[in-house]
Amino acid sequence: MDGHGRSLVIGRFQPFHNGHLEVIRKCSAESEGLVIGIGSAQYSHEPDNPFTAGERYLMIDEALKEAGVDDYCIVPIEDLNRYSVWVSHVVSMVPPFKRVYSNNHFTRRLFSEAGFELRDSPLYSRDMYSGTEVRRRMVNGEDWRSLVPPAVARVIDEIDGVSRLRDISGGE
Amino acid sequence: MDGHGRSLVIGRFQPFHNGHLEVIRKCSAESEGLVIGIGSAQYSHEPDNPFTAGERYLMIDEALKEAGVDDYCIVPIEDLNRYSVWVSHVVSMVPPFKRVYSNNHFTRRLFSEAGFELRDSPLYSRDMYSGTEVRRRMVNGEDWRSLVPPAVARVIDEIDGVSRLRDISGGE
Amino acid sequence: MDGHGRSLVIGRFQPFHNGHLEVIRKCSAESEGLVIGIGSAQYSHEPDNPFTAGERYLMIDEALKEAGVDDYCIVPIEDLNRYSVWVSHVVSMVPPFKRVYSNNHFTRRLFSEAGFELRDSPLYSRDMYSGTEVRRRMVNGEDWRSLVPPAVARVIDEIDGVSRLRDISGGE
Amino acid sequence: MDGHGRSLVIGRFQPFHNGHLEVIRKCSAESEGLVIGIGSAQYSHEPDNPFTAGERYLMIDEALKEAGVDDYCIVPIEDLNRYSVWVSHVVSMVPPFKRVYSNNHFTRRLFSEAGFELRDSPLYSRDMYSGTEVRRRMVNGEDWRSLVPPAVARVIDEIDGVSRLRDISGGE
Amino acid sequence: MDGHGRSLVIGRFQPFHNGHLEVIRKCSAESEGLVIGIGSAQYSHEPDNPFTAGERYLMIDEALKEAGVDDYCIVPIEDLNRYSVWVSHVVSMVPPFKRVYSNNHFTRRLFSEAGFELRDSPLYSRDMYSGTEVRRRMVNGEDWRSLVPPAVARVIDEIDGVSRLRDISGGE
Amino acid sequence: MDGHGRSLVIGRFQPFHNGHLEVIRKCSAESEGLVIGIGSAQYSHEPDNPFTAGERYLMIDEALKEAGVDDYCIVPIEDLNRYSVWVSHVVSMVPPFKRVYSNNHFTRRLFSEAGFELRDSPLYSRDMYSGTEVRRRMVNGEDWRSLVPPAVARVIDEIDGVSRLRDISGGE
Repeated sequence: MDGHGRSLVIGRFQPFHNGHLEVIRKCSAESEGLVIGIGSAQYSHEPDNPFTAGERYLMIDEALKEAGVDDYCIVPIEDLNRYSVWVSHVVSMVPPFKRVYSNNHFTRRLFSEAGFELRDSPLYSRDMYSGTEVRRRMVNGEDWRSLVPPAVARVIDEIDGVSRLRDISGGE
Repeated sequence: MDGHGRSLVIGRFQPFHNGHLEVIRKCSAESEGLVIGIGSAQYSHEPDNPFTAGERYLMIDEALKEAGVDDYCIVPIEDLNRYSVWVSHVVSMVPPFKRVYSNNHFTRRLFSEAGFELRDSPLYSRDMYSGTEVRRRMVNGEDWRSLVPPAVARVIDEIDGVSRLRDISGGE
Repeated sequence: MDGHGRSLVIGRFQPFHNGHLEVIRKCSAESEGLVIGIGSAQYSHEPDNPFTAGERYLMIDEALKEAGVDDYCIVPIEDLNRYSVWVSHVVSMVPPFKRVYSNNHFTRRLFSEAGFELRDSPLYSRDMYSGTEVRRRMVNGEDWRSLVPPAVARVIDEIDGVSRLRDISGGE
Repeated sequence: MDGHGRSLVIGRFQPFHNGHLEVIRKCSAESEGLVIGIGSAQYSHEPDNPFTAGERYLMIDEALKEAGVDDYCIVPIEDLNRYSVWVSHVVSMVPPFKRVYSNNHFTRRLFSEAGFELRDSPLYSRDMYSGTEVRRRMVNGEDWRSLVPPAVARVIDEIDGVSRLRDISGGE
Repeated sequence: MDGHGRSLVIGRFQPFHNGHLEVIRKCSAESEGLVIGIGSAQYSHEPDNPFTAGERYLMIDEALKEAGVDDYCIVPIEDLNRYSVWVSHVVSMVPPFKRVYSNNHFTRRLFSEAGFELRDSPLYSRDMYSGTEVRRRMVNGEDWRSLVPPAVARVIDEIDGVSRLRDISGGE
Repeated sequence: MDGHGRSLVIGRFQPFHNGHLEVIRKCSAESEGLVIGIGSAQYSHEPDNPFTAGERYLMIDEALKEAGVDDYCIVPIEDLNRYSVWVSHVVSMVPPFKRVYSNNHFTRRLFSEAGFELRDSPLYSRDMYSGTEVRRRMVNGEDWRSLVPPAVARVIDEIDGVSRLRDISGGE
């Protein structure tokens, strides 16, 4: 199977924010079907990885429906921590694809050694939108809602995500 | 988060067949959102588990679109092989749910010890539809297409699935 | 540290029965301190391994207190499934010991390759007392209480163990 | 099973010191049975984790006997490195309990999401007693014996623990 | 790197016998360098896998030197038990190769999906030479030495391999 | 088996450089057979571990042939990340040996607790030759070829290693 025009985008999405949404909109417009891989799927309840893969799945799904994006698959992908087999692992977990969007040199190298077509990920304002910044604002009680799609804020409220993040970011 | 009216159905889907489709139609009609867990996600290329999680994801997704089912999430779930943590593992990988459909005593026991609402899985003709029977027919060159949704047959053709199953079922 | 006169006995204890108790009494009498390793600690909720390591720990501890045995350590030990490192793994998880009681050729071989002193495990009536037989009786609703110490029966009742074993032993 | 009045205390105990003993005395007095979990059980021979789980088990057991504490269970618990299943893992490895003593926000969050009763861990002088400080003094040849119960010092001497810690803390 | 004319042969070699030697001689003659993968490397001390990877390495190395074969690499390869990444795993563990010798349909399928050149493994008398038969004779005290190269018999004697196999093949 | 006069040397060899070659020459001269363990075998494509175990195997093998060293075995060894079983793991993966060359206090401690003979590793100019320095020069486009045997430079060129290292060392 040749993966048709399906493309792959991978991120940790801790949490899914407006920058991610912008990237996915653009990649989706250029592809026939988008596979969205949720990386580091087994991690959660850590300061840098507060949300479970299932919670991140719901955030993305609700946000894309809200934004009118369609024709995508969301797939949690656990890290294996041996990079030599990582591309094969991803390939086995997601529907066939032929193109990868990424600006990360490392990801690009691995997929390109495996023969995939690489494209630059669309640009967005990384100063403004980043998971690190969203989490920082959550911990400090600053405005984080303006950085994420309304659907994501709803999910985070429902799972009481800010309180969890604060607890796990605190020490003893 | 209380999982609203979302329900969970888990299977290996090797491959997804008409019986599975019937179950999912009925569960979907009774629920507000369905989570479809693809079990034993890390296994493939074995006589009993020929298809990768990604291939199974595509089969299910295409078949449900074809059948007009919507409002579902598909999530590959790797086995951990320690049952005491299995429910927590599933919970972490999928969007929140509150009800589980299953006729398997073991699955029912584990989710019920964890406090989930259990429902009997809708019945279908298990004599006629089973993954084992579909795989047997594929290996023996008999008609298997009538047992699966048209979209599933298309995916299996595209990935050259019958030839793979025959190869891995053969000995030396 | 030379492990003084401490000895090691390993079993799965699914569940702990009168034969186990007899063995431990005798080994304890010959040793200065007994280490009781609960093998296959990560498995539970399976027909052959119904109880968790924690439940088995409690059964043993209560039964030994009831029987007036003292000077023992109970340690759950997870299987690693690579036998070449199994002895080192056990050694790292339990207090130092110098003697191993076992009638199992395999266990004897591994510990003896590693330089430990081996002793035959004291005999008891294996026809009468065996974990397999206790579980069979539980599933079939026959008398199993006479095969286990009273404290073990109490623990199994409190965790509703018979009902669990029946559920996980049933099919769909 | 409701865990009666049993409580859980978890630590790495590298090594077990006077502060730990004080905490366990107080928790024990308020509970009907104490479960002492030895965390990070699979690690040893590292500068921050010099002692094996089995050695730590022995230190705790000897120190509590010496101090006249009774009615406790000691259980080594291996890290799984996926926090979403950590509580289930702990629950499966130890006898039933219903209350958790901890001042660590992270531990409190995880057990409280799982429905356990949380209590503040009794205070002790953390400036004076800490595993880090004990290890630092061992490496530097300063007095560490005054920070640990006599039984712990005995165990460490018998396993030649100070020499091991110095070796593994050295570079090439 | 294109792997020049290097070829790959994989086996469990429990133990290395005359049939294996014949295959390797022929493959070596047709290739510019041979990579010999020792499969299931982490298993040992089991009735079907009695010898460690290191012991098997030594058997092969000594037998090939004795037979005057050269220009080969021997590499132990641990099973990962997820076939979708198995080829990538093998590729990462051994020097580059471009051709695979195998008569096993499964192995052929996996390497052929990954784009390697497949060749039939040279034939030898499988009735006469098989690891199963060698192990059976060892357990039963029959002549096994005639089935293996002299160097292999020497290694097995030195590690006292027959006695180990008998012990681990015995029951309680 | 007593390992005759065989000795063990372990390194990550990222990549194999002139200092390594010097050490191996000297150890080889003092031993009857040398086992060269490639540590952290499962890691690759990381800034500090750019090369796969198979690529490192080839570098070492080609360099030793070029240098006229013989009577060695090369064995990739995966990290297990539990040091208490590490020596047993190494022992199971390599041919029998009785002596270990190392200047690393940690390695020395572990093998010495297990009863092996330890020898100081021969000295070489560590200022001049180090994997860190070779990798730094590769990334910065400085001369790295003079630090490694000609055969290693050839292998790195063939696998396009410098370009890989630069890619994976770059950020986004």
